[in-house]
Amino acid sequence: MINRLCIFGVGLIGGSLAMALRKAGYCQEIIGCSRQEAHLKKAQQLGVIDRFTTNPIEAVRDADVIFLAVPLGAIRPILEQIKDAIPEQAIITDGGSAKACVKEAAEDVFGELPSRFVLGHPIAGREKSGVSAAIDDLYQQRKVILTPVDSPQPTDPEALAIITEMWQATGATVEQLGVEEHDHILAATSHLPHVLAFELVSTLTNSAVSENVFHYAAGGFEDFTRIASSDPVMWRDICLQNKGAILDMLGAFEGRLKTLKKHMLADDSEAILASFAAAKAARDEAVK
Amino acid sequence: MINRLCIFGVGLIGGSLAMALRKAGYCQEIIGCSRQEAHLKKAQQLGVIDRFTTNPIEAVRDADVIFLAVPLGAIRPILEQIKDAIPEQAIITDGGSAKACVKEAAEDVFGELPSRFVLGHPIAGREKSGVSAAIDDLYQQRKVILTPVDSPQPTDPEALAIITEMWQATGATVEQLGVEEHDHILAATSHLPHVLAFELVSTLTNSAVSENVFHYAAGGFEDFTRIASSDPVMWRDICLQNKGAILDMLGAFEGRLKTLKKHMLADDSEAILASFAAAKAARDEAVK
Repeated sequence: MINRLCIFGVGLIGGSLAMALRKAGYCQEIIGCSRQEAHLKKAQQLGVIDRFTTNPIEAVRDADVIFLAVPLGAIRPILEQIKDAIPEQAIITDGGSAKACVKEAAEDVFGELPSRFVLGHPIAGREKSGVSAAIDDLYQQRKVILTPVDSPQPTDPEALAIITEMWQATGATVEQLGVEEHDHILAATSHLPHVLAFELVSTLTNSAVSENVFHYAAGGFEDFTRIASSDPVMWRDICLQNKGAILDMLGAFEGRLKTLKKHMLADDSEAILASFAAAKAARDEAVK
Repeated sequence: MINRLCIFGVGLIGGSLAMALRKAGYCQEIIGCSRQEAHLKKAQQLGVIDRFTTNPIEAVRDADVIFLAVPLGAIRPILEQIKDAIPEQAIITDGGSAKACVKEAAEDVFGELPSRFVLGHPIAGREKSGVSAAIDDLYQQRKVILTPVDSPQPTDPEALAIITEMWQATGATVEQLGVEEHDHILAATSHLPHVLAFELVSTLTNSAVSENVFHYAAGGFEDFTRIASSDPVMWRDICLQNKGAILDMLGAFEGRLKTLKKHMLADDSEAILASFAAAKAARDEAVK
């Protein structure tokens, strides 16, 4: 049970957490903070938050939990602003899609990662963004990954337990991974596919047949490009903040394209079939 | 109205055409032909075809329409087998995902493209394949592209009208494109996305984090990789038979990845944002 929750960035992720916790009766009061007053007013009108302020220092006053639900690039400036105003027992947590960069931002601002800073990432989303896309069951049956650290000071077990319970109250399953492990897995399962979807759409809209591309697109195409409708600011930040892991995956992917092209040019029918058949088998096995 | 329809390859595409035409009462008798008797028996048991034979010459006897619904690589050998047995007034048509290669195969076998050979391509499919995946509404509200030719002898207008009417009877909308135009558009909208999906799944299953990839995958990932469950033989053939257009698109795509990597390495936040925002805008505009 959280007395006062302060959410920075009341969009899809922050707004959906607020709605889920309110529905679960897990939170007394929810305060929203953002630079954009119009968004906060809308969130209050929708009943997502109880009250709001555009002043970060005011926002964190008497907060038990501070949730950072902003694009990765906005985390460091917020931490700098609230640094000296965070209540002693408050827990800070976040929903960023990469974790090493949030850890580094906190280290830069606080000298080291505070023990009551619980790095987290709900594996959930929609292609729509903003508070009007927030829903109270976004996290239902989804995974939330927390990445507690061991050193230099370990993540506070009580803080970890409270954030675990908070996410469980939304209907999510909470799992733990190492920071680096998280960033590499997500680069593969989420960041690479999003980057490919954005670049596929751009390739098509810049091609000689761009006028006809969407007219003749079949159902599979819609599925394949849906994630290209995701928030470009969020994804720009992910590309820059999980750069190393994403570049690794992009390199591996480019290597595969190069091999495929070689096989196509050599009319190597067997090699192409073996590769496609293995991909189909893996996908069918994974998504039953 | 077709008296006798002969279908080579009674799988998803051929089987679904048979079911749709039967439902529409557009066809008196449907004969299936394939090398695999077990598949044909199953198709007959399911009521998809009236009778079958594994002998191509027998299959085309007294046929009004011959529909080739086999992977692209199997079209030429079938044409060679039936060449001397095709009834004089019979119309040949196909459902191949690329058209120049079918035209070339016909030119090789017949000397030139017969005027009653109507090149076609229904833009419809499912990730499941085989006759058990066939459904009678697969083509409902979908597009079928016919690519009639002007020279050396133009496609017979009567044959074109009959095949147009046949597809309309399934609930599809029939449009016409040039052969090359078709192949370039489909390389962009269908062939490139499928190739990327196969290679993405392969990249992940061959990565250091492969064990965790599917466990932590979110909803978008399932959508994005769905087309990697498509028939590998069909897609191997498409890669080889529409090679030029696909290599063009792959080259353009690789160029975009290269640019993105350059922007990431240079921390060029504005360039990445502009690119992702343009992709999102194009996708949102196209798929409303």
